[in-house]
Amino acid sequence: MDRRSFNRRMLLGGAAVATSLSAAPEAVGTTLRTAPAGGRIRRIRLYAEKLSGGRMGYGLQRGKATVPGPLIELTEGDTAYVQLVNTMDVPASLHVHGLDYTIHQDGTRWSWSAVQPGGTRTYVWRTHAPGRRADGTWREGSAGYWHYHDHIVGSDHGTGGVHKGLYGPVIVRRAGDILPLATHTIVFNDTSVNNRPPHSGPNFQAALGDRVEFVMITHGDLYHTFHMHGHRWANNRTGILAGPDDRSQIIDNRIVGPGDSFGFQVIAGEGVGAGAWMYHCHVQHHSDKGMTGLFLVKNPNGTIPAYEMHQQQTQDQDQDDDQDQDQGQGQDQDQGQNQDQE
Amino acid sequence: MDRRSFNRRMLLGGAAVATSLSAAPEAVGTTLRTAPAGGRIRRIRLYAEKLSGGRMGYGLQRGKATVPGPLIELTEGDTAYVQLVNTMDVPASLHVHGLDYTIHQDGTRWSWSAVQPGGTRTYVWRTHAPGRRADGTWREGSAGYWHYHDHIVGSDHGTGGVHKGLYGPVIVRRAGDILPLATHTIVFNDTSVNNRPPHSGPNFQAALGDRVEFVMITHGDLYHTFHMHGHRWANNRTGILAGPDDRSQIIDNRIVGPGDSFGFQVIAGEGVGAGAWMYHCHVQHHSDKGMTGLFLVKNPNGTIPAYEMHQQQTQDQDQDDDQDQDQGQGQDQDQGQNQDQE
Amino acid sequence: MDRRSFNRRMLLGGAAVATSLSAAPEAVGTTLRTAPAGGRIRRIRLYAEKLSGGRMGYGLQRGKATVPGPLIELTEGDTAYVQLVNTMDVPASLHVHGLDYTIHQDGTRWSWSAVQPGGTRTYVWRTHAPGRRADGTWREGSAGYWHYHDHIVGSDHGTGGVHKGLYGPVIVRRAGDILPLATHTIVFNDTSVNNRPPHSGPNFQAALGDRVEFVMITHGDLYHTFHMHGHRWANNRTGILAGPDDRSQIIDNRIVGPGDSFGFQVIAGEGVGAGAWMYHCHVQHHSDKGMTGLFLVKNPNGTIPAYEMHQQQTQDQDQDDDQDQDQGQGQDQDQGQNQDQE
Repeated sequence: MDRRSFNRRMLLGGAAVATSLSAAPEAVGTTLRTAPAGGRIRRIRLYAEKLSGGRMGYGLQRGKATVPGPLIELTEGDTAYVQLVNTMDVPASLHVHGLDYTIHQDGTRWSWSAVQPGGTRTYVWRTHAPGRRADGTWREGSAGYWHYHDHIVGSDHGTGGVHKGLYGPVIVRRAGDILPLATHTIVFNDTSVNNRPPHSGPNFQAALGDRVEFVMITHGDLYHTFHMHGHRWANNRTGILAGPDDRSQIIDNRIVGPGDSFGFQVIAGEGVGAGAWMYHCHVQHHSDKGMTGLFLVKNPNGTIPAYEMHQQQTQDQDQDDDQDQDQGQGQDQDQGQNQDQE
Repeated sequence: MDRRSFNRRMLLGGAAVATSLSAAPEAVGTTLRTAPAGGRIRRIRLYAEKLSGGRMGYGLQRGKATVPGPLIELTEGDTAYVQLVNTMDVPASLHVHGLDYTIHQDGTRWSWSAVQPGGTRTYVWRTHAPGRRADGTWREGSAGYWHYHDHIVGSDHGTGGVHKGLYGPVIVRRAGDILPLATHTIVFNDTSVNNRPPHSGPNFQAALGDRVEFVMITHGDLYHTFHMHGHRWANNRTGILAGPDDRSQIIDNRIVGPGDSFGFQVIAGEGVGAGAWMYHCHVQHHSDKGMTGLFLVKNPNGTIPAYEMHQQQTQDQDQDDDQDQDQGQGQDQDQGQNQDQE
Repeated sequence: MDRRSFNRRMLLGGAAVATSLSAAPEAVGTTLRTAPAGGRIRRIRLYAEKLSGGRMGYGLQRGKATVPGPLIELTEGDTAYVQLVNTMDVPASLHVHGLDYTIHQDGTRWSWSAVQPGGTRTYVWRTHAPGRRADGTWREGSAGYWHYHDHIVGSDHGTGGVHKGLYGPVIVRRAGDILPLATHTIVFNDTSVNNRPPHSGPNFQAALGDRVEFVMITHGDLYHTFHMHGHRWANNRTGILAGPDDRSQIIDNRIVGPGDSFGFQVIAGEGVGAGAWMYHCHVQHHSDKGMTGLFLVKNPNGTIPAYEMHQQQTQDQDQDDDQDQDQGQGQDQDQGQNQDQE
């Protein structure tokens, strides 16, 4: 377990500590962490598995697949060897957005890079820092909010795989990028959020003042507009303004379509206080159908203003919420088990 | 009446003056106005009312509701106390994008912030300037082209309310932002523009060289592409380039979905001259169905090249155009009656 | 033939030379070319013609129309006199995005700027460099990835014309902008790419290390998400980062709707190597229906890894690929025949 996952586990797992550290904005300053220099080799094993309800998922441990799959977090310069173990009875694959890989890691049928049932294949994903080319032009770095997904199941474009849940987030950070206390993934997949039943979240908890990160990914056939109440972000690479001369538009609503991804960080409740802050698709018939969830920002005393009526509505889905909590813990445990070669 | 609304009324109301001031681009320089420092308390009363044709609207005076509702214009640091008076027979509310408000001002059923028929409720909207946090990171300001809408009528997401016209624009300016001579609001609401009948505008008039601002909002279920002929804008916070190092894309067409909003300023006819310049949704079957209007840029002698054939087509909707003009005057009068505490 | 088209022809036509120059990234540095100062008068003749399969197209020579129409490439300050010759039996027109033109060049019925069957009309398109206005504000320049299309055929918005193929790319460069070795146009027009049959490209070839430009335009009724494998771009004016302080989001997937256009340059295979790199609409049922093509990046020895299985699938469309190659050559010949007045 490297120092970074240690810190993160301590902050997330130790609720009392996290609350006292993050209750007031000024306290956040004492814990501001930034991404270290890249260049590490990351070895990650992903299991593609069948899940209940016809779903499919990726997981870091056998029998622990989730939808969305686990967050893979890299820094520019890192290389990830992602070994995909296909425990299903159909071929599956791994196609990643934004990162560097040769055509034989493409995850498509045409590049012979699928994984047969019961088979295993290691995909090599490289990343690079920005820099100046020999011709004097500036080369962009790999940093971004990206994602991976199947490109095989059900069609040559993985239509069946992404429909059933074979997708997950990838974040590539730049050395010096600000690190959040927690990262949450929201995937609008046709009319579901994270392939969950309508009107059942997922909900995300934070303490007032926490620096929380959201990765937003879209899949399927439909366009959506992602909206969050009480919080907003910059429409740029990091989702936060770099400084006073950054002219990116500040938005709280963004149109997205399949394959799109973006991310941002907010200070939970900054300027607005604790509360059960909704996020939802702003396409009216999508929100009415239940493409909604809550960003639950807790007061230092643990209360969440305006949460009561939401709870009443969703009490039937309590079991789903428990599952979501399990997923979060599973991811955290798994992160410690990734073998990092420094 | 504060000095700013005085200036604006003089320029807008005094047609002869406005024309002579704005006929030539160099003349604009003499009237360039910028947003003053914020920090004011604004008290605004909004009436939610039923309108003809099954529409609903917000208005600054009883019996004067319009679709879209009146422009609410703030500067970062201002606080708005918006008292909603619900004159209708169904509960309604006010949900605002981009601004700071506690969860109890959210305008949703779950936050107990709807207004019953015949009832009144004051929503407090705060705004803030950008600045550096205690942890050294940069906090974005509230400036932007935002909007407000109902979140109650017809569904828990206000689907019925926005469908019928319960929406309006909010502009938060940064101190020093350039102020326009006039601001126009265009809302693509399903296949209508501003809930008007097809092929009936609204049309907006300007003198050649006027600095004119457009706020573009989308509502409903459909995506659109907003296109304007002969004019273009920057895809950033203000819609105008800050200077030679601002690398924002210049566009004249933008994909938008429900809940999105943006704005921009143009110099009417700059580089292209006077004329009946169309704006429309560029989704072909939407424009064919009449999601179009005109930006009428007048020559100093009052002529509008190429306007004749448009007039012929739309002569049946003359009454609608008159209504639109009434709306503009109504808004202007109302602005002067807002009580500003400096 | 001006010096620039000469250079381009030499590089594109002389395959052996192009390959040796561009095989290695460092070699690109020796050929980096930038856009010269604008201010030229360009005289271009475009023929609107009926094509096989119910298509319509624009071409630079009679009987040589293509879909999309030829690339029109200008530098800020240039003026283009575009003479449209309508060889069809229905009125047609030319409407351009982003450029400066008077209302009588608008290409719409209302501005009397259509061209009758057998008729001819010259549209004047002007462009301008950015600069400071008399009032001190900054005026954007015309530089951008724009496009032209019919605004008459089939409806007052040219719905029939753009459906059948009456569209093409316009690039306005800024003096100093980096020039590519080749420019390719991809138009998502409803569920087709460039009005071609499903699953038939177009495919674009490049040598490893070539600086290749893509112009992406959308038409019709549908939204799409443009995705390219193994390559990515900046979401700004040029599609490439200006330097380390350019905070534009780097993306490999972008939601687009009718009338939208953008462009970018990539170094073919940079960081990922040669290969048959797919591009496709990421809306799943669009990609499954065949909105896909290949960016074929060749090794110095001419091989294209992972191309075999694609070729097998598309062998039935070989004739289509030949047509596409013809189009490229036709454009190149035509460019030399444009009369440029320096």
